[in-house]
Amino acid sequence: MSLLVVGTVAFDAIETPFQKTEKIIGGSGTYIGLSASFFVKPIQLVSIVGSDFPQETLKYFNRKGIKTEGVEVKKGKKSFFWSGKYHMDMNSRDTLITDLNVLAEFDPVLPQSYQSPDYVMLGNIDPNLQIKVIEQLRNRPKLIAMDTMNFWMNTTPNELAKALKLTDVLIINDEEARQLSGEYALAKAAKVIMKKGPRILVIKKGEHGALLFQGDEVFFAPALPLEEVFDPTGAGDVFAGGFMGYLSSSNNRSFTNMKRAVVYGSAMASFCVEKFGPQRLTEIRKDHIQKRVGQFVDLAKFRI
Amino acid sequence: MSLLVVGTVAFDAIETPFQKTEKIIGGSGTYIGLSASFFVKPIQLVSIVGSDFPQETLKYFNRKGIKTEGVEVKKGKKSFFWSGKYHMDMNSRDTLITDLNVLAEFDPVLPQSYQSPDYVMLGNIDPNLQIKVIEQLRNRPKLIAMDTMNFWMNTTPNELAKALKLTDVLIINDEEARQLSGEYALAKAAKVIMKKGPRILVIKKGEHGALLFQGDEVFFAPALPLEEVFDPTGAGDVFAGGFMGYLSSSNNRSFTNMKRAVVYGSAMASFCVEKFGPQRLTEIRKDHIQKRVGQFVDLAKFRI
Repeated sequence: MSLLVVGTVAFDAIETPFQKTEKIIGGSGTYIGLSASFFVKPIQLVSIVGSDFPQETLKYFNRKGIKTEGVEVKKGKKSFFWSGKYHMDMNSRDTLITDLNVLAEFDPVLPQSYQSPDYVMLGNIDPNLQIKVIEQLRNRPKLIAMDTMNFWMNTTPNELAKALKLTDVLIINDEEARQLSGEYALAKAAKVIMKKGPRILVIKKGEHGALLFQGDEVFFAPALPLEEVFDPTGAGDVFAGGFMGYLSSSNNRSFTNMKRAVVYGSAMASFCVEKFGPQRLTEIRKDHIQKRVGQFVDLAKFRI
Repeated sequence: MSLLVVGTVAFDAIETPFQKTEKIIGGSGTYIGLSASFFVKPIQLVSIVGSDFPQETLKYFNRKGIKTEGVEVKKGKKSFFWSGKYHMDMNSRDTLITDLNVLAEFDPVLPQSYQSPDYVMLGNIDPNLQIKVIEQLRNRPKLIAMDTMNFWMNTTPNELAKALKLTDVLIINDEEARQLSGEYALAKAAKVIMKKGPRILVIKKGEHGALLFQGDEVFFAPALPLEEVFDPTGAGDVFAGGFMGYLSSSNNRSFTNMKRAVVYGSAMASFCVEKFGPQRLTEIRKDHIQKRVGQFVDLAKFRI
């Protein structure tokens, strides 16, 4: 199975109540791709970087089975840069700097080798670009998933509505679900959102777990109660990468299997927050993931 | 099995963004007792009311298997009265009125018939009174559980520390767990709290479910994603009543059975919020509870 991933490949500088980083590798495409790479190959990454982006990182992606033909390198330009500072609760954060740089020119063109992916994960970018990617696909993929955020709901609602109509799975957080639906109760929000296009909805609730909705079915996956959250950056993208990576590797779109995919996504996110940036994803192995998934099984298991 | 319940029996006036009530029946003893009455008999209720409290409510309690010999009626005095207003999120609330009335004189004396309960649930009252109740027990019960709140952590920390040492199970919410432990991460908070006395800890997270800790074991029970939360008043007490009611009726204190008890507590709480005050608890039957518990099974079930 092949998984097309569209998202940013960028630099981040992160500050938490405990520590701060210089510029490190970040971006939704990076997090989604690395997370999915534990499950499926090839991953076809679409993104844009400046000439300041390290070649060795792209080579590392390739060694992980992430193809980078679709990562445009803009000569003499700088990569997208985001800097943010987390509050004490490690949930809320302030953006300190957003330098769009090459991202302002992002106009994704799929290389020919990318035009028939089995699965598609569209990271949180301008819905116009999400639509553009979908329109370049030669065949309808087995499943198209997308992420979005409040910014696009406010600035490009019509384009977002169109993107949603083209999508099978929407993966957003609870605050975004509330804004998109205008409903506070997530069970109600889910019904409203599933009328907008996606027949499957994942609502990420951070430390409170994740909800999966399809038709009248609902599944709740817990989050692991962690003693330390070092850096939540990228956890949502890593969830999406694990979810779509697992789904595409198993090539089974039943609700039963989607529940498993939510658990794998949650397990991947639980690793991500253990170190700054994507560091932890470069250290873990498949057996770590299996062991972590076992902890989720123990955490949620009961018999009446 | 017998379950001793200590808590307030009182009047509440509740305002939500959607509706408001006049004085209705409330109090932790009411909610715990009614919830537990679906599982176990006899329930031995200890509380205090004024002569304004309706006799027919006490008779209703009796018909539900809740003994009221331990409910002192103060002639010519008024019952405890609390009035509060919920915010839009239905989680946070402002207290508008707290008229202690008879509660200021509450000095629980256990009738002789109450002095050897199998299980004990101490609702959220002054830890001095919680200790006083425990000291009147002639035999060590199979399990003593207690609730508490930020107010007692601030005003009577030494007495609270003593009460915790006498207790097997502490049932509190996430905010209270954070304050009691001084730790933000609940996994860390649990470790700190379990060193203070209780070997079992339940952390209620409202719409985000509940965590159960014992030693190195942890269990997460989801909350049902509800389309409407009508009134959250009493939901935490109803959880505790369902938890202790189920535990005492099954008389099995294994971790496996305690997980079931958390699910039954969560199911009871999910009913409570569907109408104002304890109304919903007067309508449901055992088969409603079994059906609701089935929804929790479906919600959390997955196989890797």
